[in-house]
Amino acid sequence: MALKAIKPGLRNEAGMDAAMQRMRERFGDRFQTGEAIRAQHAHTTTYIPAQLPDGVVFPDNAREVETIVAIAAQHRVPLIAFGTGSSLEGHINAPYGGISIDMSRMDKVLEVNAADFDCTVQPGITREALNVYLRDTGLFFPIDPGANASIGGMASTRASGTNAVRYGTMKDNVLAVTAVTAGAKEIRTAHRAKKSSAGYDLTRLFVGAEGTLGIITSVTLRLQGIPEMIAGGVCSFPTIGAACNAVILTIQSGIPVARIELLDAVQMRASNAYSGLSYPESPALFVEFHGSPESVDLQSRQFAEIAADFGSSVFISTSNTEQRNALWKARHNAYWAQKSLAPALAILSTDVCVPISRLADCVEATQVDILEHGLIAPIVGHAGDGNFHVGLLFDDKDAADISKAEAFVERLNARALAMDGTCTGEHGIGQGKMPFLEAEMGDALDLMRQVKRALDPDNIFNPGKIFAM
Amino acid sequence: MALKAIKPGLRNEAGMDAAMQRMRERFGDRFQTGEAIRAQHAHTTTYIPAQLPDGVVFPDNAREVETIVAIAAQHRVPLIAFGTGSSLEGHINAPYGGISIDMSRMDKVLEVNAADFDCTVQPGITREALNVYLRDTGLFFPIDPGANASIGGMASTRASGTNAVRYGTMKDNVLAVTAVTAGAKEIRTAHRAKKSSAGYDLTRLFVGAEGTLGIITSVTLRLQGIPEMIAGGVCSFPTIGAACNAVILTIQSGIPVARIELLDAVQMRASNAYSGLSYPESPALFVEFHGSPESVDLQSRQFAEIAADFGSSVFISTSNTEQRNALWKARHNAYWAQKSLAPALAILSTDVCVPISRLADCVEATQVDILEHGLIAPIVGHAGDGNFHVGLLFDDKDAADISKAEAFVERLNARALAMDGTCTGEHGIGQGKMPFLEAEMGDALDLMRQVKRALDPDNIFNPGKIFAM
Repeated sequence: MALKAIKPGLRNEAGMDAAMQRMRERFGDRFQTGEAIRAQHAHTTTYIPAQLPDGVVFPDNAREVETIVAIAAQHRVPLIAFGTGSSLEGHINAPYGGISIDMSRMDKVLEVNAADFDCTVQPGITREALNVYLRDTGLFFPIDPGANASIGGMASTRASGTNAVRYGTMKDNVLAVTAVTAGAKEIRTAHRAKKSSAGYDLTRLFVGAEGTLGIITSVTLRLQGIPEMIAGGVCSFPTIGAACNAVILTIQSGIPVARIELLDAVQMRASNAYSGLSYPESPALFVEFHGSPESVDLQSRQFAEIAADFGSSVFISTSNTEQRNALWKARHNAYWAQKSLAPALAILSTDVCVPISRLADCVEATQVDILEHGLIAPIVGHAGDGNFHVGLLFDDKDAADISKAEAFVERLNARALAMDGTCTGEHGIGQGKMPFLEAEMGDALDLMRQVKRALDPDNIFNPGKIFAM
Repeated sequence: MALKAIKPGLRNEAGMDAAMQRMRERFGDRFQTGEAIRAQHAHTTTYIPAQLPDGVVFPDNAREVETIVAIAAQHRVPLIAFGTGSSLEGHINAPYGGISIDMSRMDKVLEVNAADFDCTVQPGITREALNVYLRDTGLFFPIDPGANASIGGMASTRASGTNAVRYGTMKDNVLAVTAVTAGAKEIRTAHRAKKSSAGYDLTRLFVGAEGTLGIITSVTLRLQGIPEMIAGGVCSFPTIGAACNAVILTIQSGIPVARIELLDAVQMRASNAYSGLSYPESPALFVEFHGSPESVDLQSRQFAEIAADFGSSVFISTSNTEQRNALWKARHNAYWAQKSLAPALAILSTDVCVPISRLADCVEATQVDILEHGLIAPIVGHAGDGNFHVGLLFDDKDAADISKAEAFVERLNARALAMDGTCTGEHGIGQGKMPFLEAEMGDALDLMRQVKRALDPDNIFNPGKIFAM
């Protein structure tokens, strides 16, 4: 019951007052309590109602983060790390009040080791800013969740996005983090070796922990060489099933596609209108190939053959950078295109992920569900990973509409889990997916709780997320 | 102080007697206490003196593992999971006594999903047996640590080996595990979706935990398509530095080499003698390329150019399967070839891993160290990952020789850590690397201990490994 799950919890008022006082003394006007700024730090593209923090602090460095954690630990008040606020499941809400730590001032590149294809950055830098910084090195950071998210936020939600099908997710591209944990000291989870068997994988424990185990203060990332050639295009299909089956065969054939994105007919109509495009209003795949000119050519031809076998009539292919950028800008603006379908409605943007062989089954069944229940809900997806999103438009002021939306999300998640999938491929749990995580993990959820209790005994780090304690 | 670190701890004698009695009642002759079988379950290719368990139990299924854990938990006696005994740092020793769980009867393939490139196996199956089973599917499991290890053991040490440079390590190739944890119930860490953001990464927590958090009862693995073509060869270099620099440039050039293994001159002499080969007795790279015929050809040519630039005079290349197998058999027998240099001596086989740009520095400094101290210590390495091994021959009955060996290992680890590397790229910590893990992790080691305490409060799972509690 996604929307009903959120209720503000008990607040530690005395502790909060004391902590606020000390924050004011220590950080001056880098500690803000105005309502507008607090609202901005709880407001995201999420469908979940905002729950404001009591204040927002803007640290400059890891030592200041240690100070903030020490104050919060002493007075037992919640700390919620904030990157750019582009998370989708209520991750940055403050159901028990507390202090939002805005990482935007910690946005430096600390080190680039071009010879080792790695770099270390502060958590507040965005992925676009990082790639601008890297431009002259011949390297780039490939993970692209669409939004211009912060690297710390991307690490915390185990983000992925359009080209994870080729380059992996944050799980695969974070070499190490430093984080301030409950003891108010900064620890480092690993060093720069490409692989290690040195004890528990603390790096992967922080990646995807949604800020519940500590505050990330730096991230060491793997980088990739900029491909010699990039080409891509748009391919229309008669049915969504045909598009999905083309994806399945592309992946099973081992074509190292860099991006293969599914958009259903409703999304194509919305994106055409919003982004001023004129593609056919039928299910489509947006694809991109990276490599040497020979390799890109070979991949394009192999893919075009598969697409044709599944009835694709048109494959508009281009290696022109401007055209390519327009295409991916339209893909990245999918959310805003959805929104433009009915500006007065809210969007419940949710994701699931299934084994690739079940992608067509899951997407087709979901589309039948949408039709049968008379919903407006475009589907877009990182189809090569078996991951897709539904952007359900609903009236968040109307109880019946909320119930309908909740029931749809429940059916969607049950469907994905029944296919050996997961309730979230990349958005994370936050508040919105908590009941589905329980269904997915069963008794294993207790292990997560045990880890949380061990590392954050006073539950100060982003409480009320992932699981109820 | 690797060898000195091992001292048998306090034993829970009363609990042990009671647990042994219940094991006998429950498992009959699948519970063994003879000295030979106990010795076999503590003896490995490790240099660390054996510490025998009190008994060895052979479960048939996960329900029986639950029973074993319940008995051990009730009587607070150690449980040590055993695969094939090929670990190198004393992982399967029983410093506090306890019961070895031999997984060899749990060696079934439970499920192959060829369409999703995954399979689920019991932990006792070996990697070679799995690949024989998969032969007709067109798929293979790529991780190859040399020894014919069990999949459960490989998951537990976060194993990698010769072709991790192309396919990643166990961290990248385990999709999920089931494990029996301290509550004596089996949990599942994840499902079969290719990616997930559903809460803490419990899969990666069990991968590399060396059996200290629970007993793995099944492993879901990613598989790869068998390459259309495989070719490789041996390439000799005038100096070890030249060989390392050829590796560095190969990786930095983005050549997707499948294997690139370094063997120093001493190792080449030993391997020639042991495996009946006649390669030049100078530093060499063993390489392998996977892909389409065009791609393999391109990779081979690109690599040969780089090798020539670094003074390689000979590149004996072959796509003949028999010749290739002979080559890799010689590589896999490196340990036994080392042993044949001085059969009366013990081998301290140790590994470190550094960022690729530091590989030549680290290997060269290590070879100077070996020469200066008059040691016999061939170097072999998974050079493409910056990972190398030293097989130090020493007299394990001679206190002075032991001290010399320990001092060398200390210097080797300090050198790797100073280069932002790790004290183990793939062997794991076990008992032998405990002091170096402390040096590497600093305060972060406390987080590992907190996780251990939370998930195994009575310290029954493989106590005395990774860290002192």
